[in-house]
Amino acid sequence: MIKPEIRLNMINVGIVGGTGYTGVELLRFLAQHPKVNIKTITSRSEAGMEVAELFTSLRGYVDLKFIDPAESKLTECDLVFFATPNGIAMQQAEALINSGVRIIDLAADFRIKDITEWEKWYGMQHACPELVAEAVYGLPEIISRDQIKTARLIANPGCYPTAVQLGFLPLIEAGLVDIKQLIADVKSGVSGAGRKAEVHTLHAEASDNFKAYGVPGHRHLPEIKQGLSKVAGEQVGLTFVPHLVPMIRGIHATLYARLSSSKQINLQDLYEKRYAGEAFVDVLPAGRHPETRSVRGSNICRIAVHRPQNSDTVVILSVTDNLVKGAAGQAVQNMNIMFGLPETLGITQIPLLP
Amino acid sequence: MIKPEIRLNMINVGIVGGTGYTGVELLRFLAQHPKVNIKTITSRSEAGMEVAELFTSLRGYVDLKFIDPAESKLTECDLVFFATPNGIAMQQAEALINSGVRIIDLAADFRIKDITEWEKWYGMQHACPELVAEAVYGLPEIISRDQIKTARLIANPGCYPTAVQLGFLPLIEAGLVDIKQLIADVKSGVSGAGRKAEVHTLHAEASDNFKAYGVPGHRHLPEIKQGLSKVAGEQVGLTFVPHLVPMIRGIHATLYARLSSSKQINLQDLYEKRYAGEAFVDVLPAGRHPETRSVRGSNICRIAVHRPQNSDTVVILSVTDNLVKGAAGQAVQNMNIMFGLPETLGITQIPLLP
Amino acid sequence: MIKPEIRLNMINVGIVGGTGYTGVELLRFLAQHPKVNIKTITSRSEAGMEVAELFTSLRGYVDLKFIDPAESKLTECDLVFFATPNGIAMQQAEALINSGVRIIDLAADFRIKDITEWEKWYGMQHACPELVAEAVYGLPEIISRDQIKTARLIANPGCYPTAVQLGFLPLIEAGLVDIKQLIADVKSGVSGAGRKAEVHTLHAEASDNFKAYGVPGHRHLPEIKQGLSKVAGEQVGLTFVPHLVPMIRGIHATLYARLSSSKQINLQDLYEKRYAGEAFVDVLPAGRHPETRSVRGSNICRIAVHRPQNSDTVVILSVTDNLVKGAAGQAVQNMNIMFGLPETLGITQIPLLP
Amino acid sequence: MIKPEIRLNMINVGIVGGTGYTGVELLRFLAQHPKVNIKTITSRSEAGMEVAELFTSLRGYVDLKFIDPAESKLTECDLVFFATPNGIAMQQAEALINSGVRIIDLAADFRIKDITEWEKWYGMQHACPELVAEAVYGLPEIISRDQIKTARLIANPGCYPTAVQLGFLPLIEAGLVDIKQLIADVKSGVSGAGRKAEVHTLHAEASDNFKAYGVPGHRHLPEIKQGLSKVAGEQVGLTFVPHLVPMIRGIHATLYARLSSSKQINLQDLYEKRYAGEAFVDVLPAGRHPETRSVRGSNICRIAVHRPQNSDTVVILSVTDNLVKGAAGQAVQNMNIMFGLPETLGITQIPLLP
Repeated sequence: MIKPEIRLNMINVGIVGGTGYTGVELLRFLAQHPKVNIKTITSRSEAGMEVAELFTSLRGYVDLKFIDPAESKLTECDLVFFATPNGIAMQQAEALINSGVRIIDLAADFRIKDITEWEKWYGMQHACPELVAEAVYGLPEIISRDQIKTARLIANPGCYPTAVQLGFLPLIEAGLVDIKQLIADVKSGVSGAGRKAEVHTLHAEASDNFKAYGVPGHRHLPEIKQGLSKVAGEQVGLTFVPHLVPMIRGIHATLYARLSSSKQINLQDLYEKRYAGEAFVDVLPAGRHPETRSVRGSNICRIAVHRPQNSDTVVILSVTDNLVKGAAGQAVQNMNIMFGLPETLGITQIPLLP
Repeated sequence: MIKPEIRLNMINVGIVGGTGYTGVELLRFLAQHPKVNIKTITSRSEAGMEVAELFTSLRGYVDLKFIDPAESKLTECDLVFFATPNGIAMQQAEALINSGVRIIDLAADFRIKDITEWEKWYGMQHACPELVAEAVYGLPEIISRDQIKTARLIANPGCYPTAVQLGFLPLIEAGLVDIKQLIADVKSGVSGAGRKAEVHTLHAEASDNFKAYGVPGHRHLPEIKQGLSKVAGEQVGLTFVPHLVPMIRGIHATLYARLSSSKQINLQDLYEKRYAGEAFVDVLPAGRHPETRSVRGSNICRIAVHRPQNSDTVVILSVTDNLVKGAAGQAVQNMNIMFGLPETLGITQIPLLP
Repeated sequence: MIKPEIRLNMINVGIVGGTGYTGVELLRFLAQHPKVNIKTITSRSEAGMEVAELFTSLRGYVDLKFIDPAESKLTECDLVFFATPNGIAMQQAEALINSGVRIIDLAADFRIKDITEWEKWYGMQHACPELVAEAVYGLPEIISRDQIKTARLIANPGCYPTAVQLGFLPLIEAGLVDIKQLIADVKSGVSGAGRKAEVHTLHAEASDNFKAYGVPGHRHLPEIKQGLSKVAGEQVGLTFVPHLVPMIRGIHATLYARLSSSKQINLQDLYEKRYAGEAFVDVLPAGRHPETRSVRGSNICRIAVHRPQNSDTVVILSVTDNLVKGAAGQAVQNMNIMFGLPETLGITQIPLLP
Repeated sequence: MIKPEIRLNMINVGIVGGTGYTGVELLRFLAQHPKVNIKTITSRSEAGMEVAELFTSLRGYVDLKFIDPAESKLTECDLVFFATPNGIAMQQAEALINSGVRIIDLAADFRIKDITEWEKWYGMQHACPELVAEAVYGLPEIISRDQIKTARLIANPGCYPTAVQLGFLPLIEAGLVDIKQLIADVKSGVSGAGRKAEVHTLHAEASDNFKAYGVPGHRHLPEIKQGLSKVAGEQVGLTFVPHLVPMIRGIHATLYARLSSSKQINLQDLYEKRYAGEAFVDVLPAGRHPETRSVRGSNICRIAVHRPQNSDTVVILSVTDNLVKGAAGQAVQNMNIMFGLPETLGITQIPLLP
């Protein structure tokens, strides 16, 4: 099998909770990242097991065992990724940061600035509200990269919020639409539900089937509203309806906004210019429809802009891979920025199609 | 194998173009319908082949061969179903009707009353505009059943139009929403594209993938607008975005409308009352999310009503099986009405889940 | 919704453990069976819940709640189906039978006559070995129907064993093959694993994937060997390799046997004659390949016979729906025989294709 | 988007017929291969179209248009890949070779040494039999790498033949099994059928379904028999049954062989030693079952060795990605050998899981 070479002058990273899908994706990117040394990976449930036994895809690439969190040497890392369920990172972040370790949390613990709001949606008391204010929301195409570069703690965005915010951003920045009437009809592959044993995501339940869920309210709603409201300079109104698609990976956001301005504006041009300098946002030519497989396994977000029948309703289509640009890939992108590396280093894999 | 019994006092039906998915579904319902005798089924391409050789599922149930259209005795039928591509029924309808044969067209030839509009969307000249006015649009929950009962020619509704119209209907009838800003974000399984050899619906292209299509314009848009406008009494404004879901059957319509009235209204109650007498429309209890598999293989439309965060945007979820309530099942429902039979006869199969 | 009519002179049936896939399938068949009254359905975990809330497909067809087993009146039933995990029926069978209730166990408790062998494969002590001898193995095409008709206790066969035994049967009865070298390469949809929350059958794990499992040994191996050995009159040798297919329903058995006889024999003819009188076994014309969807939702087993390149290796292809002929449908077939009804009553639904 | 750097000292490659799945996979590997310059890619049907318009996954990575074959400058290439249907490469190979261009044919034109046999299975006359003898069969783990290194013309193996031959190889080399009774029960994802518009591989036909096909005879049978017979030193007997799996990529070969020797042999050890030096063959630890997703998108073949119930029947499980080790990846592996590069260069991507 392919042996990784010994690596020098590397970022020493730790991964907490590497048995889920964001864990295996982090490993896929980090195991071949030219500037990363994976120092440790923890799991309470699988401690002692070879990582490549759990994820056979990593045989020959990752030669590590899961370590019990109690025995891991996270403080010796330069950077720790939390690929854990919500509520774990907030308990460990302070101690690590005080030891000089930087953190990227792929869960939701530090995404919502309003602690009351967070506690309402996540159903638990926040363990370290004081770090929430400091945490930088790691959506590099929207947040200033300088902030990310110097951050001690990154709140890595959710999968839906990434696709939706990148889709709405140019319209809202340009002040073109009624921000009180935004609609995001979003669809996700089932890996978004994680690698948890649950009946409703069994193949026999979820395949050959389609449904909406969480229409009364979904945790990503406040995250998206916070992000878009910051851009808009005032509170946005958003109807957010998530759906479960019988596919493994991928998010497709279909976004609707009412043009509020009578200005003649070339929307295609607006989007292309806004994202011209972005390596990971691809605005498709006019009239196209992005498909989720066109970004499968990659860190790219592809966007198309439509105005059907020249009406006042703009339709934006935005696709990402929920496990990559919506999770692990964006985390590595943030890492690259934090450590002064080229932003695309290690995450330029071509999407897998078909 | 199970032998069909000899049947007396039956409706003699013919099927024109039975090699597609609506054809095999018609056969599934008609072969066991207690009042139907399938007299003939035509196919130009497969003439001479056993029906059950093409559709192995019908072995033991259907003992017919495809007949060349030229040799079929359609005029001896009481009723002919056209399960053909668009543009075929309009060429044969007049002669058949003049011979006293009644017709249900599962294609689009007679759905749009405005001939110019039809010709624009379907890209051909209409062969018998005079029958378009006479044709009855066969959506029994909306159109008067008396009209269907006496019709010589039924335009069987499209799959998207059925799910969308049934979903919006109570809101529009009650005059509760801004009919100029309707949004229908609809999702269909790939059988909606028919049994045609095409690259984009190959399993290797369409599975594990999700995309929108036809955002600039789709043929079902004018059909839906015609239907809803008739109910509203004025022209509605509709943004209609179809998507392709990696599943075989099923339509999920996610409908958005802005409440225009300040009246306090119980939407759940409104829907339950509107559809109380309908055998094939099931309004789910408040807070539920219908899934397409809950109607797989059945003629039922299930609907849920939501008003997230108590905002002004109502969200309606409506699911059908595109090949049944969206095509063959509704056609048999229309047949039952036309011939004075119980409306549910032969189409009460329980959905197949899982 | 469609209301079931009041039914008289019916078999009163109970279902123990109706929250799994065999449960919902039993309900699909029994709810429309003209001679069945579903008296009670039990579930420990879901007691009090509407059946049609758990399985939305049954809304309008089944108007029952799950009853706590302690409160169910099973002894008032004529027949009780156990749709439970292995090890439950054996604890309740004796008492019910003594109350005059007949039983069909869809689990494995009474399938294996050799108690030691059963305990080895199922990892528990058998609770009532004395009933094992009495139990009739309910594979009507192989076992005498007279035995089924008078049985107090039916061991309903496993899904793989049904497809494999029906496939091998004519060859072994005719003494044509080396029974020490049989190979069954079998493939199952994921519903075969049941409606249990487990990681390896999640959609994100099982879809777009294929694997063998249980190659060192699978519980259906002794069941198949017992059945085929009885037919052969001596112990058969069988290599049995199951695989998991990314589909919901269906079993495909690819069977290999070495011709041991130099007799000239028409294998196609042998199979057609053997199954000529069987309503639920369909031998395809020579040269065909059955597909699992051709029996989706139906009680039919379709079989094709091949002898590639005229070599000594016969290849038999046998497909069933694992939840129907491999479970609930066969159970209803057994019920029909037990109660003197036409064998096909209530289970003649046409397969759902596509 | 990510711009490829300007590359020097590169192999200039051409691709003939790049609109299929092996084409897009070749592009995925070659576009990021550090020693390759893609000079031209031809397509008759899509000439003039941007490659990245047809395959959106390549946007930002491949900046080429399809060239009409007549205008392509293939003779200026160092190496030409034929990713064409069968029967194309044989018409162009001689002229290119005479111009000093080396060739890797991913189709079947040069795989079978016996011209009569080839013509029988492929149904056409061979256009240049004289090159067949010279062509080197590019399965590097079996064929001497020296031959590949100096070859002018490589016949890249078929997808099934790769998985089957790698699976059987150690057993046959060691003379342990009855080579007259080999059985290969093989399963393939639908991308194996190519990117051709056909009814039977539509999503609505192939998904949620499983079937065998080509049982009477399949083109890969003579290719496998040729390869194994060469290793065995005599003609092998093989029963070969292919199946279609509702997944995009992946081959799973389940291989059966009868031990003919009474020698005590450690099969696990045999396989591990045979493939110890091979970068792309991974022998799993004893008792494991490889799954196709564990090699998704990668050039690895994973193999497990079983001897169920210690009988005389050995069961080998062998998985590959049919488009990679079964096609484009193996082609690049051959290219690396031909041009003296490290064999794994550019094809070490980690499999995509989930």
